[in-house]
Amino acid sequence: MKLLPNLSRSIFYSVVLAGLSQLSLAASPMESEPAAKNVILIIGDGMDDQQITAARNYLHGAQGQTILDTLPIRSAVQVLTVSNENPSQPIYVADSANSATAMATGNITSIGRISTSAKTDQDFTTIVELAQQKGLKTGLVTTASLTDATPAAFYSHVNMRGCEGPEQMVNFESYGDFVIDCHEDTQALGGKGSISEQLANSNVDVLLGGGKKFFKQAPEKSDQALSKQDTKTVLKMAEKNDFKIIKRLDEAKAINKEEKILGLFAKKHLPVRWQGTDGRVAEKPQYSFLHLFHRYLGSVTLPEVMKCEANPEFEKQQTPNLAHMSELALTRLDNPKGFFLMIESASIDKQSHKRNPCGHIGEAQQLFETVQVALNYAKQQGNTLVMITADHGQAAQIVPDGSLFSAFGAPIATPGFLARIETREGGVMAMNYATNDFSHEEHTGVNVPFFANKQVKDKAGKDLITPMLKQTDVFHISKKHLGL
Amino acid sequence: MKLLPNLSRSIFYSVVLAGLSQLSLAASPMESEPAAKNVILIIGDGMDDQQITAARNYLHGAQGQTILDTLPIRSAVQVLTVSNENPSQPIYVADSANSATAMATGNITSIGRISTSAKTDQDFTTIVELAQQKGLKTGLVTTASLTDATPAAFYSHVNMRGCEGPEQMVNFESYGDFVIDCHEDTQALGGKGSISEQLANSNVDVLLGGGKKFFKQAPEKSDQALSKQDTKTVLKMAEKNDFKIIKRLDEAKAINKEEKILGLFAKKHLPVRWQGTDGRVAEKPQYSFLHLFHRYLGSVTLPEVMKCEANPEFEKQQTPNLAHMSELALTRLDNPKGFFLMIESASIDKQSHKRNPCGHIGEAQQLFETVQVALNYAKQQGNTLVMITADHGQAAQIVPDGSLFSAFGAPIATPGFLARIETREGGVMAMNYATNDFSHEEHTGVNVPFFANKQVKDKAGKDLITPMLKQTDVFHISKKHLGL
Repeated sequence: MKLLPNLSRSIFYSVVLAGLSQLSLAASPMESEPAAKNVILIIGDGMDDQQITAARNYLHGAQGQTILDTLPIRSAVQVLTVSNENPSQPIYVADSANSATAMATGNITSIGRISTSAKTDQDFTTIVELAQQKGLKTGLVTTASLTDATPAAFYSHVNMRGCEGPEQMVNFESYGDFVIDCHEDTQALGGKGSISEQLANSNVDVLLGGGKKFFKQAPEKSDQALSKQDTKTVLKMAEKNDFKIIKRLDEAKAINKEEKILGLFAKKHLPVRWQGTDGRVAEKPQYSFLHLFHRYLGSVTLPEVMKCEANPEFEKQQTPNLAHMSELALTRLDNPKGFFLMIESASIDKQSHKRNPCGHIGEAQQLFETVQVALNYAKQQGNTLVMITADHGQAAQIVPDGSLFSAFGAPIATPGFLARIETREGGVMAMNYATNDFSHEEHTGVNVPFFANKQVKDKAGKDLITPMLKQTDVFHISKKHLGL
Repeated sequence: MKLLPNLSRSIFYSVVLAGLSQLSLAASPMESEPAAKNVILIIGDGMDDQQITAARNYLHGAQGQTILDTLPIRSAVQVLTVSNENPSQPIYVADSANSATAMATGNITSIGRISTSAKTDQDFTTIVELAQQKGLKTGLVTTASLTDATPAAFYSHVNMRGCEGPEQMVNFESYGDFVIDCHEDTQALGGKGSISEQLANSNVDVLLGGGKKFFKQAPEKSDQALSKQDTKTVLKMAEKNDFKIIKRLDEAKAINKEEKILGLFAKKHLPVRWQGTDGRVAEKPQYSFLHLFHRYLGSVTLPEVMKCEANPEFEKQQTPNLAHMSELALTRLDNPKGFFLMIESASIDKQSHKRNPCGHIGEAQQLFETVQVALNYAKQQGNTLVMITADHGQAAQIVPDGSLFSAFGAPIATPGFLARIETREGGVMAMNYATNDFSHEEHTGVNVPFFANKQVKDKAGKDLITPMLKQTDVFHISKKHLGL
């Protein structure tokens, strides 16, 4: 089943709930035993309050509520980054690599690093590794490549996020002058290899997302114990390391629940659910000739209003919904010892970078649906902590549709890119993207929202989820709830 | 005493606490009576999460905490606006007039309106009016003109926020083509007159802020019962209506606590505490000649780093601190029947409009100091609800200092205005202002933060301060706590 934009929520929830009724049998704790402790951490990449408000306005109306707004606990998170050259020096805007490292390991690091320390390049132990050591199951679900920064920080250790496959490890030229290099992380130099190789060598029970590209590459080292055929690609290596590879979600049914599964559903990132009318994104307002002479002269034409529509690529590539991937992960992770599951709606960020408001609103909707799946599971299971947060702020801003100062009579508009979206309630929501004129907008340094379904207390009975958190607290709260 | 930027917080707090020790005598409830119920509503105009994070980074460091971060209750507020032509149509970005109306009256209205209904222009009853009807004291303290939109919405009713004095009521030309007109609100047509006249006719016990300009104007109507001299200016009218006028805070000492006081400390808005080095604000990055040919060619020079320094105007005009004005208000409002006090740090918004980060950070600091004063009072008094929120989002964004994509080699910078601030911990925080190229930036439509010192429950014992509020809830929570 595809969740198209015009599918009503009630139909969606009934389908999700039908799926969960099956799940509930497995989730019911034994009468004699307390329910296992689980953590579901849901990350909306770049999902700051502007993003949530834009999605709320579009999906539920200005006065409506998203599922996040109904959660009993709200906090905000300080996003923390340091300089790689001088780790005592704060940097005020993060990327997904260092912010995921903070949540996955409880340590602050520098931009681009995957669970390694700034400057000294030491590996940090991740919550997934800690959980595995104690016999808990683990899972990572994302709409990005599984080797992308956010999921990667939960299972791998490398000094540059771009080192996603063996071919990207040494002096790999990306985007002209930009060179990716992790030669010190190569196995030849005693490192753990590229991100996809570290994934193939991992014991994560459920891995669902994109990134086929990085698994088709030949691994750096052929294991002597394996035949040449077995190690021809990273994917073959993963199979040899007991991963069952799936190409569609329903293939998992035939695989024993104790087996590890790796689902790769796109070459790199999964296509997004929505796009703007005819694929349009935000555009530059157009000024008349007179405006060249003085900024108060002439007139300005704003981009045409657009609607959100289904992205044909999503359908064409038979892309699984994030909620469905998450449901599958829950059915497989549910076990008496507990689990840690990270779920990422990655393209809220990626579509905001590309100035595509319908793109990021649709991916926020995917996250909201996934939160419903997680809450339904948590309600039945009884001991599952569900946390939802973002990793960093994004460029998109909701601005007036027409200037607040339009009565002044001058042509006033953003110097950046503007999209005007017709909302379902018939309003026009204008979104501004103006952090640069490059192909991708910048992140912002704002603190990000945090939501949870329940409180976690320390030994002394003190709340660990306080109204203001640091990003590293997400790790400590997870650790405490799981008893690691 | 002036609070200069280099004054340490410890000195400040000791002074504030010394002030409060005097206050505590009055604040102690009689043993036999429960403490009176009070509400202190502190509004940071335009103080969204970007603003709070910027102020935190500068004042306390990236890992530090503001006083807001230590409060036990955090929520977020949906900012609600409708079209004046069609009040069922939502507008996604507010101004201070309609958002203050929502908080002051519990009603959603259109941009620019002061406690009147969209389209139908009906007056809404304000929390200040309700409190007065029940014999509670009321106060309004602001760093803006007392006739500015936020304070005005608590005591006046007019269809355009610009109608601040009698001279601004009919076809008043402001900023070229922009005409202010409230002729239907003139007393000649049965209206209540301009905002300053409505203030002069009000029974608000404590009014502290700016706006002399609007009180020097001749009122529309001379009251027959008053001599010509008494009604020569709106200020004279206020005096005749039993307001004691003060020009310095210490003049209030000599005035009986039962008398109404009106303190006007600036022609319009109070000068702000801080400015950038040599008065600099955000500037446009400068591109080299080659960049004219292609956006990936040439180079870009970012504005020089600046520091925050004392604004000489603040000192020169002997401007009172917001915290000191608030302290005075509390000493006068403290009474056995309770009070409602609204305090606004107005120029967080105004300085952000002007792309002056040091300006808005200094005014956020004024708000934080004021929150400390309010919390100290609440702690001693025992039954005071302190709420802190913003009215709407603002344009300022914390962006990377240098692009996230700088390794690409192209000259990448904002198409808007950029300020690079050296923080106290030695970092460089870059602030982007890019919602337009006009003299003033736009507001944004993001939901805004909300903080409180305690919970308020309804009759059924249900929390009224839920993790997500609508802006109109601020009115309902105040009303409930005060028993109105």
